Formats: sequence, structure tokens, C-alpha cells
Amino acid sequence: MLFDFAGLSGLDRYKLLVATVVPRPIAWVVTVDEQGTLNAAPYSFFNALSGDPPIVAIGVGARAPRELKDTGRNIRATRQFVVCLVDEANAAAMNVTAVEFPPPVDEVAVAGLTTVASTRVRPPRIAESPVAIECELHTMIDLGPERSIVLGQVLAMHVRDEAVLDAAKCYIDTPKLNLIGRMHGRGWYARTTDRFEMPRIALEEWEARQKAAE
Amino acid sequence: MLFDFAGLSGLDRYKLLVATVVPRPIAWVVTVDEQGTLNAAPYSFFNALSGDPPIVAIGVGARAPRELKDTGRNIRATRQFVVCLVDEANAAAMNVTAVEFPPPVDEVAVAGLTTVASTRVRPPRIAESPVAIECELHTMIDLGPERSIVLGQVLAMHVRDEAVLDAAKCYIDTPKLNLIGRMHGRGWYARTTDRFEMPRIALEEWEARQKAAE
Repeated sequence: MLFDFAGLSGLDRYKLLVATVVPRPIAWVVTVDEQGTLNAAPYSFFNALSGDPPIVAIGVGARAPRELKDTGRNIRATRQFVVCLVDEANAAAMNVTAVEFPPPVDEVAVAGLTTVASTRVRPPRIAESPVAIECELHTMIDLGPERSIVLGQVLAMHVRDEAVLDAAKCYIDTPKLNLIGRMHGRGWYARTTDRFEMPRIALEEWEARQKAAE
Repeated sequence: MLFDFAGLSGLDRYKLLVATVVPRPIAWVVTVDEQGTLNAAPYSFFNALSGDPPIVAIGVGARAPRELKDTGRNIRATRQFVVCLVDEANAAAMNVTAVEFPPPVDEVAVAGLTTVASTRVRPPRIAESPVAIECELHTMIDLGPERSIVLGQVLAMHVRDEAVLDAAKCYIDTPKLNLIGRMHGRGWYARTTDRFEMPRIALEEWEARQKAAE
């Protein structure tokens, strides 16, 4: 079935992308405005895009044309943010922070969460989150009046102690993080519990396999 | 546990990001060079970042400084690519296309896959893939000599017939796509089989709940 995007509404384009590009990692983004008022909200138009330099990307939307939602507005103004990652235990709290509260509601407090000061940026991290990534704005790309892409350079990362296998070697016990991914519709998520291993094949190994099969 | 990125090697920065930002959707990117030679390779530094305009992003690497791998080089030269999505049935074939074959090996043929002509761009799509997204280059952001970010504007999307619930309404049966996500290490993946539903809460609903609780 072919969907020609030229003939589709903006909503239909969005629906097709969020229903197919899955599973999406979730950024629970913490920012503060110029007065220090805290904001937290989840975004699944998110991923790491480079290891070195260490860059993460978030697609942020607008409440109205030229009026970015709090996250985008605060990042543009302060150039700093913290990406917390979401495990299953924090799913319900994350969902509370996604409610469209009128400002200046502190979503973090309403969701029953606590914060801890960051080491390199002004926005704090969510204490309950197993991973927090402190970022400074690298580039902001305005796609149009209602959409921008935030590229953030990673300054520091906090990982819950129990999930660190070897700090010196930067080995993390990823399954222990129990992170969830965003799926389709208004509320489907996937756990990362059903896994399989398929190691990458080195060229020499591939050639040896081919030789053995002949 | 705090990891200060200023004191880490490039490899350690990469290891921390790929071990924590999970599950990552996978782009199986098909490109052609100026002579029409086909290339396909999987990337998990990938996601949709905007619905309208419809934008996907891919982080691409280099074989050597200033010498992007085939995917990035071809996109820079031709400004076109197709993102195929990966289901469990195609995992092994995808892994074959990730082998570092010396050019001009046709990874798609070696992996036993077939291609179908695209409707809006020159690179074909992988016939076996349940979703294919035809893209043209929107912006290429060079992060350094070895890393670039490709922003692609979606021109068209093909979805396997059985997974289309209502074409006019753009309703897709996402679980039927059986897509996989990239996890940690050199070869861990997650299925999207273990799901839960947690609908977004409207402000009115939240307020009604609070009132009921008082």
C-alpha cells in the first residue's frame, strides 16, 4: 500500500510515522526557564545520533505557530537540558508529566517525583530515573513555525549504580535499566524484556562461512 | 554513578550512549551512487523527529576522516534514500548487509533479498521489508570529520497490505509489523511483543480524578 505524502494532511503524515517508526526511545526532558521554573515532559521523537561527538536529538513541537512548548522555549532561552530515560517503574509518573497543565504547574512535583542537582547544567535530573544525560544545546534547527529539532551535546551521564557493571570500562547492564519504548497510538509502549542476540559478522567470519558452505 | 564526558574517549562516549538510549528503531537505508550501484546498511542512530513536515534523522559515520561510509557518501551525492524498517523475519538478512564488504559488493543480493522500484526516488526499496520510507535530503549537518546527521524529508511510504487497517484514515496495525529495536552491545535486539497500554491523560480527566480523590 502506497501513501504519497504530498497528498496527505499534516495529521495523517504524523499518524503514519508514529505508527511505523517503532520502538522509539523516550526522552523525559527536564528544563528550567530564565526564572528557574522547572519543566519536564516526555518526547519519543528522540535518539542518540552520534557517539563522538556525543549528540542526542529531540523533535519538539509548538503550542501555536512561533510559540514552542515549554521544553523547546526553555532550551532556546537557556541552552541547557537534561534527558532522563524512562523505565517501567516510572511510566505512570512520566504520563502525568505529559498532561497539558497550564503553566506554571510543576509537573515533577505533581507526579510525585523528586529532583537532584545536575553537575554541569542548571536543570536538575529526576532522581527516580535510572539514567540522566546532561546536555547543552549544540544546534537548533527550525523546520517550520511549529516544529524544531534540538541537537544536544552530552556533557555528563548519570547511571543508577546497580546497572553499572564496570565504571572504568563504561560497561552498563542495559537489561537491568528496564527501559520502555514508545509504540503506536495514543498510549502503546513496549518493554525491552523480549530480547535476542545476533552478533555482528566480521568480514573474515563471513568469508570463512562461505568457504565452509562450498 | 557519574560519567563526565569531558574525560572520556570517543569509544567510551559511544559505548555509554548505545548501552543506555534504548530501544532504538532501525533504519535499513538503501542508496545508490552516481553510477547506480546499490548499497544497503542498517543504522540505529535513527528516528522520526517531526510529523509535519515529515522528517527522519540518521546519524552516519565515516570509514576514515572526511570519507563517509557508502550511505552518507551516496546521500550527499544523490540527495535521495529509502529507509526500510526491519521485522524479526528480516533480522538475519539485515545483519548480512552490515558486513563490511569491500565495494562494489551488492549486499542486498548477497543477503538473498530482492528490490522493487521506488515511486519518487531512484534508490529502490527492499521488497521483503514491511515498511519503506522514500526520502529526499532535507539537511546534512556535519558534526566533525567522521560524523554527519542526515535529515530526510519523507516523500512516500509503503506499508505491507496486511498491516494497513484503514488506508483512507492512515490507520496502521503496528503490532502486525513485528518490528525489532536495537539494544546494547554488539548484537542485542528487542522484539516489540511485550506491550502495555497507558493512554495519555487529558487535563480535564486529570482534574476530574483529583476532585474524585478529595
